[in-house]
Amino acid sequence: MVRKIKIGIVGYGNLGRGVESAIAQNDDLTIVGVFTRRAPDQLQLLNTDIPIIPYDDILQYKEKVDVLILCGGSKDDLPKQGPNLAAHFNTVDSFDTHAKIPEYFEAVDASAKPNGKTAVISVGWDPGLFSLNRLFGEAILPEGATYTFWGKGLSQGHSDAVRRIEGVKGAVQYTIPVEEAVDKVRSGKLPELTTREKHTRECYVVLEEGAVAKTVEQAIKTMPDYFADYDTTVHFITEDELSRNHSAMPHGGFVIRSGKTGESNNQVMEYSLKLESNPEFTSSVLVAYARAAYRLNERGDTGAKTVFDIAPGLLSPKSPSALRKEIL
Amino acid sequence: MVRKIKIGIVGYGNLGRGVESAIAQNDDLTIVGVFTRRAPDQLQLLNTDIPIIPYDDILQYKEKVDVLILCGGSKDDLPKQGPNLAAHFNTVDSFDTHAKIPEYFEAVDASAKPNGKTAVISVGWDPGLFSLNRLFGEAILPEGATYTFWGKGLSQGHSDAVRRIEGVKGAVQYTIPVEEAVDKVRSGKLPELTTREKHTRECYVVLEEGAVAKTVEQAIKTMPDYFADYDTTVHFITEDELSRNHSAMPHGGFVIRSGKTGESNNQVMEYSLKLESNPEFTSSVLVAYARAAYRLNERGDTGAKTVFDIAPGLLSPKSPSALRKEIL
Repeated sequence: MVRKIKIGIVGYGNLGRGVESAIAQNDDLTIVGVFTRRAPDQLQLLNTDIPIIPYDDILQYKEKVDVLILCGGSKDDLPKQGPNLAAHFNTVDSFDTHAKIPEYFEAVDASAKPNGKTAVISVGWDPGLFSLNRLFGEAILPEGATYTFWGKGLSQGHSDAVRRIEGVKGAVQYTIPVEEAVDKVRSGKLPELTTREKHTRECYVVLEEGAVAKTVEQAIKTMPDYFADYDTTVHFITEDELSRNHSAMPHGGFVIRSGKTGESNNQVMEYSLKLESNPEFTSSVLVAYARAAYRLNERGDTGAKTVFDIAPGLLSPKSPSALRKEIL
Repeated sequence: MVRKIKIGIVGYGNLGRGVESAIAQNDDLTIVGVFTRRAPDQLQLLNTDIPIIPYDDILQYKEKVDVLILCGGSKDDLPKQGPNLAAHFNTVDSFDTHAKIPEYFEAVDASAKPNGKTAVISVGWDPGLFSLNRLFGEAILPEGATYTFWGKGLSQGHSDAVRRIEGVKGAVQYTIPVEEAVDKVRSGKLPELTTREKHTRECYVVLEEGAVAKTVEQAIKTMPDYFADYDTTVHFITEDELSRNHSAMPHGGFVIRSGKTGESNNQVMEYSLKLESNPEFTSSVLVAYARAAYRLNERGDTGAKTVFDIAPGLLSPKSPSALRKEIL
């Protein structure tokens, strides 16, 4: 029996809980503990046997953890935590601020590499699996176009933006791909699509007492970056309806590469996800890449890595020869 | 300007022609020549400036070729050619006899490794891209099931089987996924499906003069392995209709992984291809992996490889930092 890979979970929000649950599905992985800045009694783990450890003690676990999975947010947690922890641990994170990936990569690499650690950044489905499919698409069909559609799904960032509006007590926002646009892309027509033509946005809003619906609706629909470039529908609902019908976190989307080969034969590659729980799926991807991070480090392959740098076979608990025999 | 990667094409059937055409879409690759056992005047290259070289002279090109793309068949050509050529060249091939992959891998590895060559086997879409998606599926969602559907598309093997029947002058066979089964899988229901429930088969047959339709139809429908386990439809058509309507080589299919996370949330990952030209698409995949084979060899990573062993970033002409910035 090979020894299990020892995982530390940093942070215990939706993602941390998803990681705990995903690791329970993998026999070759085990959880050393959950590291948190919160008081231990504020956390309710799925498995109460797992130790809850103060974040400030984390360096005491350098020899006891093979890989840390960083479950904090890209805005406030990871920019500091990622580089700090990669100096002491192999890490995997889901840093997803696309525009800042290059500088984040450099910061993590500068910290991991001289310390002989392996740090896989920006893991999940976008960035992550969707990025891989964009890469395969353009590498295999150089003459063509790549289209990414998101949804139907709950967007955390857009929901937060609506919640910040005065008069809004609660809200969720769904991003919805425009079916007509998706069909056009699938047909191989290589359409040029504007932002508005690709997605619509749908908001479910609970008003504060005394707030004026018309005013709130206007504030949402004209919000720059978030809503102004989209066709947005706003539904006003009760607090009860919000918690009853809109507390799940579904998401998904498509990456479609449409290209031409030879004398103009259309070739369409499509990748799609239909997720009932976005955070649980992201966590499942993080866990598979934690296995890869451990293996890369074992073979001396250190520094910052992305999904582009990792041979897919490293994600599987199966041996290379079993993979060739069973699923190649 | 970085120097171009020099490719040799071995064999010039549909796949070889597809490789020639795919390389013309990639600025960082160039063709040294087409190696063939046929008389040069029997070959009609798309670009007549490319040298046609007798196969027997191939070893004279050891220093002039970076990667050979082997475009022969899995039944008669590759079992010998693969191991032979991997002793002298970096190679990429599309060996697709699933059951024999393990032994083919060993034979190629035994030849490539001691000679410092890199040989990527079983590249294409199945085995190849579909295999990768089966791997990602089960690594990310360990509790679930993987479904592979093929079609709608022309199956060369089944078409050949029909052509061997007495009284058949010409024929093509299409493999068609059963829509109801695909929908059931997509819904996350994890159905158990028999062979018959997953695909149907449709044959278009031209009879020899005097052949009896009923007899031929019976011979097709009862053929073990190929047709007996399927619902098969046979259409009799004229030679003219066959060449007018059935000379394209479309194909495609789906790999669907349906799994559960957390408290039983359904998560569905789907990969699909819709190809107007099966050989041209396979060729395009071969060409991207030829780039990877060259790079692996440059960094001293030798021996036999499969798509599972190759970091996706190696497929792209872009630098790692450009990939992180542009498509991660």
